[in-house]
Amino acid sequence: MRDESSIIIGRNAVLEALRSETTVERIFILDGCKDGPISTILREAKKQSLPVDFVKKERLDEISYEKKHQGVVAYVAAYKYFTVDEMLSSAKEKGEDPFLFLLDGIEDPHNLGAMIRTANLCGAHGVIIKNRGAVGITSTVVKASAGAVSYTKVAKVTNLNQTIERLKEEGMWFVCAAMDGTLMYDCNLTGPIGLVIGSEGEGVSRLTREKCDFVASIPMKGDIDSLNASVACGVLAYEIVRQRVKK
Amino acid sequence: MRDESSIIIGRNAVLEALRSETTVERIFILDGCKDGPISTILREAKKQSLPVDFVKKERLDEISYEKKHQGVVAYVAAYKYFTVDEMLSSAKEKGEDPFLFLLDGIEDPHNLGAMIRTANLCGAHGVIIKNRGAVGITSTVVKASAGAVSYTKVAKVTNLNQTIERLKEEGMWFVCAAMDGTLMYDCNLTGPIGLVIGSEGEGVSRLTREKCDFVASIPMKGDIDSLNASVACGVLAYEIVRQRVKK
Repeated sequence: MRDESSIIIGRNAVLEALRSETTVERIFILDGCKDGPISTILREAKKQSLPVDFVKKERLDEISYEKKHQGVVAYVAAYKYFTVDEMLSSAKEKGEDPFLFLLDGIEDPHNLGAMIRTANLCGAHGVIIKNRGAVGITSTVVKASAGAVSYTKVAKVTNLNQTIERLKEEGMWFVCAAMDGTLMYDCNLTGPIGLVIGSEGEGVSRLTREKCDFVASIPMKGDIDSLNASVACGVLAYEIVRQRVKK
Repeated sequence: MRDESSIIIGRNAVLEALRSETTVERIFILDGCKDGPISTILREAKKQSLPVDFVKKERLDEISYEKKHQGVVAYVAAYKYFTVDEMLSSAKEKGEDPFLFLLDGIEDPHNLGAMIRTANLCGAHGVIIKNRGAVGITSTVVKASAGAVSYTKVAKVTNLNQTIERLKEEGMWFVCAAMDGTLMYDCNLTGPIGLVIGSEGEGVSRLTREKCDFVASIPMKGDIDSLNASVACGVLAYEIVRQRVKK
């Protein structure tokens, strides 16, 4: 359940949100509802690639805290997301090679917050997250980031692979973490680079992995499978930092 | 509030727990209660350096889930802690230099779990935590460790500084993390080593810091103060790994 401050309830309110600067994250529509205004909302949602859930009345009443919802409720982000271009400009302004984090479906807000915190401290120019199947900037994420959300740009994209393709054209290289990759010390991680981190459960998706120039592995000698996602992100990000500062 | 499975209620039960293999973590005694059995419990608790809280009846009723508590309730650990010596033996058996984590008051169970997970994967021989002012092995920690608790030894000590002193006599070196330390790449972190990580809010305590041979800093170029504790632990642990495997 969302905090009431990040919910928009009712047809006009939701439609206005969709047409304004407000970032709508998800829309809930009453099952079976398909009149004029709802069709307009659905069309706008499709245009913006937003997830839409059709739910029963009881669920919609619950989501809207029993307020009059007219068959539609939207979750909105308090956070104003940046664009990937704004991140590149920020790198350019600083006269640095772009260094971005790309998160392939992080679900735990504590992990996302810790990663934005790491991005800030290791000098990355931004964190790119996915529109769907991932946590956005919630109040828990803001808290876990220890305020880093106010300084480090976060962008939301619909298709991570397309974003990688586009950034490759701009001269960026991509590295993702996987157990069976090349030992990270043996990968050349200098220059304009994107660090791709997979989700907690699944890791980096196959297609995204195939788009990466390097698959780097963190040396592991233990009994279990993998590090916590935000720890793995930190270890790899700092291997990039080390290679960048190495004399 | 604890899960009922990790609470022991009543005089005999608590006294038996204190005399058995069960790890008692904290004792709650009814304010003003000081008859024979309670005195025995207090004496045992003191011998084992256990924290004892004197609480009002309402609080004790709440802690014991309204069960008949006879003025005493104890929190017990499901986990059987190891000794520091068992960690040293384990390093010796593997023919490796001891590599231990020493946590100076970690409060967040997710962080503790992530650190035990990191300890396991980076080949550390154990994690030493504090008796007081820190989280112990709870069900949340076990979950956050992704099962690493079953493979990596965790010891609980009353005085971290005394443990450091003793381990120094065995030839170990100690490094802690702090913002104003020597850049971690410039510290020699090879050989038998203990990595000291401070608490989320306070960092490493002054006295503990003074006992360390190195104060290492992670390079930081951002706007905020510090990394998440488990991320900082991971980055430093992997700098130790890098220096150990470096040809």
